[in-house]
Amino acid sequence: MNYPNSFENLINCFKKLPGVGTKTAERYAFQILDMDEEQIQNFMNAIDDSYHKIHACKVCGSLTENDTCDICNDSGRNQNIICVVTDTRDVIAMERVGEFHGVYHVLGGEISTTKGILPENLRIKELLERINENTEEIILATNPTVDGETTALYLGKLLGSKGVTVTRIAHGLPMGGHLDYADELTLSKAIEGRIKI
Amino acid sequence: MNYPNSFENLINCFKKLPGVGTKTAERYAFQILDMDEEQIQNFMNAIDDSYHKIHACKVCGSLTENDTCDICNDSGRNQNIICVVTDTRDVIAMERVGEFHGVYHVLGGEISTTKGILPENLRIKELLERINENTEEIILATNPTVDGETTALYLGKLLGSKGVTVTRIAHGLPMGGHLDYADELTLSKAIEGRIKI
Repeated sequence: MNYPNSFENLINCFKKLPGVGTKTAERYAFQILDMDEEQIQNFMNAIDDSYHKIHACKVCGSLTENDTCDICNDSGRNQNIICVVTDTRDVIAMERVGEFHGVYHVLGGEISTTKGILPENLRIKELLERINENTEEIILATNPTVDGETTALYLGKLLGSKGVTVTRIAHGLPMGGHLDYADELTLSKAIEGRIKI
Repeated sequence: MNYPNSFENLINCFKKLPGVGTKTAERYAFQILDMDEEQIQNFMNAIDDSYHKIHACKVCGSLTENDTCDICNDSGRNQNIICVVTDTRDVIAMERVGEFHGVYHVLGGEISTTKGILPENLRIKELLERINENTEEIILATNPTVDGETTALYLGKLLGSKGVTVTRIAHGLPMGGHLDYADELTLSKAIEGRIKI
């Protein structure tokens, strides 16, 4: 005996989520059976709404339900400092810190030779269009990984030729970490990026 | 900035699934955004169908889309040997082995003092109703945990008084395991349950 067809379908749907195998998908599907009518309706509406209402902000590429997102609409923020990140999750992470008062630009990925992602697949054209004589600084906040560094290098060269100030977020020891647990690359970056106190 | 409302809703829905925290729920929600119209529709239908079509088999309590499940309907199976399990997942696990040709009875849980689950919360009444003079054997296949053992002991006493043969699945070393890695309880059960070769 297998599970009934509709239940098997549900398991297969859950298996499409990242990192979910058969066992986990089964647990999720059983949880669905335990939910009440209201929760089920809520779940389906949430999927439906997210799919139909959410899209990329026309300016920065972050997620929004409107044409432009809350950050791009916020006149209290400095629209001339643009922080370039890989995806919307990074915007949320930066906003959680709450110390950056400029705006963002979401690339939608990183240049990757292994995954075959080229500069033209990212929102780089849109970034160039945002830059004008008022632009004070472009902060490159892509991930400190091979792909993220490649992307930052590429953008650094490209934007540098436009005469705009380009900075890269600092690499070094994470706060609360131990020096002897740090890998060589992090440590060498920490020494390289040392500042006068 | 937080995520747009409908996206935040979707994250909260995913957080209701077992073992899913904020980070994982976010990853799942982003995956939903990456799906196409067909996959989204399929996902919603699967949830809807599972919720509305799936219910417990009237006889054994396993999941089915009909009144009774495929196993209970199968005349090729010995309806007089009943294997008592905790939930439907256990039926699927047993069926994967394919060596049991009787039928099942799903209790829907295990007696638990810590969780406050009493015998009357389980499908024990329904089990007693299934037993008649033709019943050859009741195999207790609840989990080898405190709750599972309690349930097996309880059922063993209850069914023993009805004069029906009651057996418990064997406890011992799992195949492929190493003796020196086994915990004391498993090892003591393995010695206790030794068989003549």
